Amino acid sequence: MWHSALDLMLRRLLQHGQLRLSLPDGVTRTYGDGHGAALHVQLKDNATVRHLVLRPDLAVGEAYMNGTLVIEEGSLQGLLGMIVANRDDAPQIWWQRALPRLRTAVRRFSQNNAALRARRNVAHHYDLSDALYDLFLDPDRQYSCGYFRDPTDTLAQAQINKKTHIACKLRLTPGMRVLDIGCGWGGMARTLARDYGAEVLGITLSEQQHAYAQAEATRAGLDDRVTYRLCDYRDVTGEFDRIVSVGMFEHVGLPHYRTYFDAIQDRLKPDGIALIHTIGWMARPDATNPWIAKYIFPGGYIPTLSEVASAIERSGLWVADLECLRLHYAETLQHWITQFEQNVDKVQALYDARFVRMWRFYLAACEVTFRYGRQLVFQFQLSRQIDAVPLTRDYLYQSGDMPT
Amino acid sequence: MWHSALDLMLRRLLQHGQLRLSLPDGVTRTYGDGHGAALHVQLKDNATVRHLVLRPDLAVGEAYMNGTLVIEEGSLQGLLGMIVANRDDAPQIWWQRALPRLRTAVRRFSQNNAALRARRNVAHHYDLSDALYDLFLDPDRQYSCGYFRDPTDTLAQAQINKKTHIACKLRLTPGMRVLDIGCGWGGMARTLARDYGAEVLGITLSEQQHAYAQAEATRAGLDDRVTYRLCDYRDVTGEFDRIVSVGMFEHVGLPHYRTYFDAIQDRLKPDGIALIHTIGWMARPDATNPWIAKYIFPGGYIPTLSEVASAIERSGLWVADLECLRLHYAETLQHWITQFEQNVDKVQALYDARFVRMWRFYLAACEVTFRYGRQLVFQFQLSRQIDAVPLTRDYLYQSGDMPT
Repeated sequence: MWHSALDLMLRRLLQHGQLRLSLPDGVTRTYGDGHGAALHVQLKDNATVRHLVLRPDLAVGEAYMNGTLVIEEGSLQGLLGMIVANRDDAPQIWWQRALPRLRTAVRRFSQNNAALRARRNVAHHYDLSDALYDLFLDPDRQYSCGYFRDPTDTLAQAQINKKTHIACKLRLTPGMRVLDIGCGWGGMARTLARDYGAEVLGITLSEQQHAYAQAEATRAGLDDRVTYRLCDYRDVTGEFDRIVSVGMFEHVGLPHYRTYFDAIQDRLKPDGIALIHTIGWMARPDATNPWIAKYIFPGGYIPTLSEVASAIERSGLWVADLECLRLHYAETLQHWITQFEQNVDKVQALYDARFVRMWRFYLAACEVTFRYGRQLVFQFQLSRQIDAVPLTRDYLYQSGDMPT
Repeated sequence: MWHSALDLMLRRLLQHGQLRLSLPDGVTRTYGDGHGAALHVQLKDNATVRHLVLRPDLAVGEAYMNGTLVIEEGSLQGLLGMIVANRDDAPQIWWQRALPRLRTAVRRFSQNNAALRARRNVAHHYDLSDALYDLFLDPDRQYSCGYFRDPTDTLAQAQINKKTHIACKLRLTPGMRVLDIGCGWGGMARTLARDYGAEVLGITLSEQQHAYAQAEATRAGLDDRVTYRLCDYRDVTGEFDRIVSVGMFEHVGLPHYRTYFDAIQDRLKPDGIALIHTIGWMARPDATNPWIAKYIFPGGYIPTLSEVASAIERSGLWVADLECLRLHYAETLQHWITQFEQNVDKVQALYDARFVRMWRFYLAACEVTFRYGRQLVFQFQLSRQIDAVPLTRDYLYQSGDMPT
C-alpha cells in the first residue's frame, strides 16, 4: 500500500526531469519527462517509504541524513531542484493540500518566540562550533545573502557589496548612533564603525557570536565605537539615528511582527532610517518547512510581503523603499556549498557523517528554493518621517555605491 | 447640543495650528496651539454644524461646496492641512473610531466594480469636458503623479520624467507589444510608441478619453503603432511583452484585485514585465473618504501595500521591485492647483461656482493628504519569471534614465 501511495504521489509531482527510484523490494520505477540530468535514488527500507508518503517535507531530509535515502546517480541539489521546480505546477493529492493549511494553523504556536525560547532557538544554530562557520562562510562571517553587482563577483566581494549597499541605504554620517539587531559575528557593525564613523551597538542572543564579535572589535581597534551586547531586541532602550537588521527577522516569528516593528518605531529618532534585510516568500503564506524547523531553525518563519507590510502599516512607519533581491541568495549558497564540500573532511572531524549530511541537505535545500522556488530577499528601508529618505533613489547609484 | 459636540470634537482633534471658528449664533471659538498660519472659518447654518459632527469626512467638503463653510482668513489647503496633520495624533471620540470600521465593513459593496458599473464610474469623472482637464494638467494630459528628479522640475518635465522612468522599468525594445490598462488620454502609449518603438494597445472605459487619444495618435502619425480601444481590462485577449497601468488601479476596488492580477498574469508573456503605478495608503486599511467617493471617484479605493501584495502573492507573479514615491504627488497637485487657480474663470464659465469649489476642494484635499497624511504612490514592477528583470537596479540609473 505505501509503495503504491508513493508511486501515485511521485507520478503527480514529478512532471519534469528524470528520476529512477529503487525501492527496498528491488523494484525500480521512473518518473518525469526524461529531460534534464539523470537521477537515481535508492530507498533502503519500508519505514522510509511510509514516512515519505505521510510527511514528505520532513522525510526526504531525515532519510538523507540517516542514510536510508541514497543518491546513486546525480547530486542532492539535482534531486531537490527537481522537486522544487515541479512543485508549483503539480496537481496535489488531498492530504498534501491539507497539510500546509494545518501547519499554517498551528504555526502561531511553533513561533511563540518569547525571550527564553528565542534564546534557546538561537543557541540551537548559532552556538555551533565557530570553526564550522569558518569552513563555508566568507572571511567576515556574513551569514546572509550577498549582493552580486556582477555575476562574477567572489563571495567575499558580494558580502562587501552587501554591506556597502546597506550602508548607502542608511545614509550614515560620522558619529551617528546605530543599532544592529541580530548582529551575528559583528561584521556589519565593524564595517559601519570603521568605514562610516558610526557608533554601533550590536545585539545578539548567541553567546558564541557575542564573544567572537567582541574579540574581533578589540583586534580591529574599534572598541571605542562598537559595543556588542547579549540582548533581546525587546529589551533595548535608548534612541538611535539608524537601525539595521540583517538576516534576523526570519527568527522573529509571525506573532511577534507587531512587537518587532513597534520596537523599531520606538528606538528610532524622528528623522531616523532603518534597513531590514530578510528572506521572503513570494506566494501564499506557508508554514516553515518542517525539516528546517526541526533540525536547523526552530521558531523560524519566512514571511510574505503582505505579512510584513501588514505589521509595518500598523506601526506608523513608512516603507520608503523595497528592494527585492532575486537569485542573490542562490548564488551565495552555491559559494557556501562549494566551500563546504572543499572542507567536508574538517566538518566531519568536528562532528560526524550524519551532521555532514544534515548540513549538506540544509544548504542544498535552501539553494534550490532560492533558485527554482518562491524565495527571495527583501530589503525594507523604513522611516518615521515621510521625507527622511530622499525622494528619488539617485543617491544610491550616483555615488558608485562606495563608502564616503 | 450640536454646538457642544462639535466643540468637543474639535478640541480633541486640533492639537496643533490655529483656527478661529465662528458659529451661526455669532459665537467664535479658538482651537489649536496658536502656532502656524492663522485660519478663520465661518459656519453659516446649524444644519452644517450638525452634519460636521455626524459625518465630518463628508460634511467639510459639502459645506465648502455649498458655501455654508466659508474661509474668512487663510486658505483651504491651510484648513485641510491642519485637519490632516492633526488626525494621526488625535485621540478620537467613540463615534469617530466606529465610523471607519463600519465603512471598511461595507466597502466591498461600494467597490463592486463589475463591467457596467465600472464604465459608469469612469464616465462620472473622465467624461467631464475635455476643456476642464486642459485648464490644470500638463500639455500631455498626464493625470497622475509626476516624477520630480529635481524639486525645481516644471510639471511638464516631471511628467516626462515619469514616463521615462516607467519606460526604463519596462525595459522596452523596438517592436514589443505593450498593453496600457487605463490609458487615459493616451500620452503614455504615444510616448512608448514614438520614443521606444513599441506597438501599444491602450484601453480605457471613457469615451471622451478614447476619442481624444485616437485623434492625438493620428495627429502624431502614430496610427500604425498605437491602437486605443474602449475596453474593460477583463475583456482583453492576446499576449503582451509588457503591461503598463498608471493611475488605474485606484478604480479596481478591493474585491477585484485577484481578478486584476490574474489578468496581468494571463496577458503577460512568460518573460514579460508589468509596471503598475498606483496611489497607496501607508497605514491600516481605511475606507475611501466618503466625500471623494460621492463627488469625485465613485467605486475608488486606495490600497495598502499589504492588500496589493496579498493579491499579487496569490497570482503567481513576482514583485521584482517596489518604488515608494513619497511627496511627488503633493508637488504634482500643487502645480495643478496653481494652474487651476490661474484658469478659474474659464472653469467657472464651463460649469459654475459650486463646481469650482468642488474641484478646488478635491485638489486641495488630495494635496494635503499626500503632504501631511499617509498617502504615497507605489510603482510595482512585476514579472512571471524570477529573472525577467535584472538582478540589480543599476540599469535604471546608469543610462541616465533617458530613452534609448
